[in-house]
Amino acid sequence: MNQDKLKQIEQWTNDHHYDFTYISDPKNIEYLTGYYTDPHERIFALIVFPDHDPLIFAPQLEVEDIQKSGWSFDVDGYLDHQNPWRMIAKDVEQRVHEPHHAALEKSSMQFPVHNFEALAGALSHVTFDGDVSNLLEQMRLIKTPEELKELAAAGKEADFAMRTGWHSVKPGVSETKIAADLQYALMKRGVMEMSFGTLVQAGKHASEPHSVAGNNKVGNDELVLFDLGTMHNGYASDTSRTVAVGHPDDKKLDIYKTVQAAQLKAMDFCKPGITAEELDHCARKVIDDAGYGKYFIHRLGHGIGLGTHEYPSIMQGNKMVLKPGMCFSIEPGIYVPGVAGVRIEDCVHVTENGCEPFTHNTKDLTYVDK
Amino acid sequence: MNQDKLKQIEQWTNDHHYDFTYISDPKNIEYLTGYYTDPHERIFALIVFPDHDPLIFAPQLEVEDIQKSGWSFDVDGYLDHQNPWRMIAKDVEQRVHEPHHAALEKSSMQFPVHNFEALAGALSHVTFDGDVSNLLEQMRLIKTPEELKELAAAGKEADFAMRTGWHSVKPGVSETKIAADLQYALMKRGVMEMSFGTLVQAGKHASEPHSVAGNNKVGNDELVLFDLGTMHNGYASDTSRTVAVGHPDDKKLDIYKTVQAAQLKAMDFCKPGITAEELDHCARKVIDDAGYGKYFIHRLGHGIGLGTHEYPSIMQGNKMVLKPGMCFSIEPGIYVPGVAGVRIEDCVHVTENGCEPFTHNTKDLTYVDK
Repeated sequence: MNQDKLKQIEQWTNDHHYDFTYISDPKNIEYLTGYYTDPHERIFALIVFPDHDPLIFAPQLEVEDIQKSGWSFDVDGYLDHQNPWRMIAKDVEQRVHEPHHAALEKSSMQFPVHNFEALAGALSHVTFDGDVSNLLEQMRLIKTPEELKELAAAGKEADFAMRTGWHSVKPGVSETKIAADLQYALMKRGVMEMSFGTLVQAGKHASEPHSVAGNNKVGNDELVLFDLGTMHNGYASDTSRTVAVGHPDDKKLDIYKTVQAAQLKAMDFCKPGITAEELDHCARKVIDDAGYGKYFIHRLGHGIGLGTHEYPSIMQGNKMVLKPGMCFSIEPGIYVPGVAGVRIEDCVHVTENGCEPFTHNTKDLTYVDK
Repeated sequence: MNQDKLKQIEQWTNDHHYDFTYISDPKNIEYLTGYYTDPHERIFALIVFPDHDPLIFAPQLEVEDIQKSGWSFDVDGYLDHQNPWRMIAKDVEQRVHEPHHAALEKSSMQFPVHNFEALAGALSHVTFDGDVSNLLEQMRLIKTPEELKELAAAGKEADFAMRTGWHSVKPGVSETKIAADLQYALMKRGVMEMSFGTLVQAGKHASEPHSVAGNNKVGNDELVLFDLGTMHNGYASDTSRTVAVGHPDDKKLDIYKTVQAAQLKAMDFCKPGITAEELDHCARKVIDDAGYGKYFIHRLGHGIGLGTHEYPSIMQGNKMVLKPGMCFSIEPGIYVPGVAGVRIEDCVHVTENGCEPFTHNTKDLTYVDK
């Protein structure tokens, strides 16, 4: 539990004269309380009051775990056959006399329009005019030293998994076998959760940027793209490398060199004071100038932390000024249909005068079968 | 792509005089189109019109995959720096002259309040008074023969994984090692995605029903609870078994027998015409009568299909009448803190006169070290 972070939400709730703030995103609840669960379709909420201790409302089967996690305030648990919205209304009304104004997270994926209508129905005198999403995004943007340690530890796991995967690459081996080998090596170390489905894409398959590892087999003289990450104490890692088998032709090597140059240039340019879109542009210009601009079809990067994709978004149009403690990916890519796909990615944190990556495997083209 | 299912949405949209229906849940889009992607925070939607062909709106990097998947209608792709809501508004206005009424999915996790406000802002003359969630739930409730085949195939994978896991259980082995072994065996067969994080819980650890596999090691004379599932062509499996190591004491064996009796009784009672809550009650009564009622702290089951948790919910208060083609879990459990946790689970489909499970491992207590 992080009392300072909770206090910020209490203060914000008080400053805006809300009677309570209803937080439903499980990662935001983890950020504020230290406790994570994926409630699926069940109701799980952190309710913060200006003048009372906060409350977690949860499925009954989570209550014991929440109490053991170090949460020292109230927990109200509900059984599947109970109406959670009426119970939440009662919990609120026990703490606030005649509540009128409240805030919620309008960006929370865990709070569909249906839930909003149910909560508003159970608390029919309350106007939900506040949105705490932006405050939470801003808080999560700047990582604490403790968070940076977790991200660095996650990065080490990803580096290990990447190198393990390279050892499995041989002509004739399927993408899934390579992914299986690297994930098994992680699991034997107790790393049970990937931050997303491991991508291993050989040859032309890598020109489809977001498809998955499949039965496709590694060929000779190809490039093989890896994109993988792990979860470490709730924090994500995410890294990409592209390696060579045999003797890829000059066209493929040229694509590789262009992505490598773009990635290194962006790593070098990244520092406090520039904007997210300037950083995107810096890498994109290298790729544009080499004639591959139309094959770089995604943003340069995404924020990382408790979520694999969070703020800041490193893309055209985002004028957010980078500050120390921000963490995001730098991952230029070129995908030429029918030829090859190359992506090189490190997640970094912005320092006082530059940036430091969480992952450290070489970015020189590695010939894995030599 | 399933034209019949899409036609039902078109018909419903027409019957209710909506100008369009906006569908955002990726699993519902998969159900209707055959194409699945997890868009994360990006915008991904299926828009259905009463008098025009439907449209998929997607991130640009998905467009090629969508076209290859067999989708024969329009796809509009957007780049990260573009405003998707304005593009969606334009797409709608190209197909409908002065749209006024529309429906959306109010239960969709992929459509937070923020997105709703953005869509409503871009189409400011449209009233979103329809909710297609219920129709989609109803459609997905009754599985087609093709869907039953996928669920049966997923069940076979889960049965294999379960038996593989049993072979790894020995005193001194960690829960994570057991989970790693069974998942690696699956991955070597090309099964890369679990339907949820594999649970292996030994001894007292199993009395915390929804915690994860950890460093906890198997002891002597204990029960070990497994709960696992795979994804097969988009369809989920989910099964639990609890096995014995050494000579668990009489208290543990009594808990096991009670859960076994409750599970078998519910399997036998399950048939068309009874309600979901009657089925829950049938199993719960066995556990209540044995004196363990307060330790059975979750519903009897959840629906399964494209989602690991969907409708129908088998619980007190749900008076839905079971019909042939409905698919759900039957998973009674008893969790006595500090003693043991036992759960036995099969997912079944309701037949004309009973039910058939998708998983078939023995439910007699298996002594894995003998």
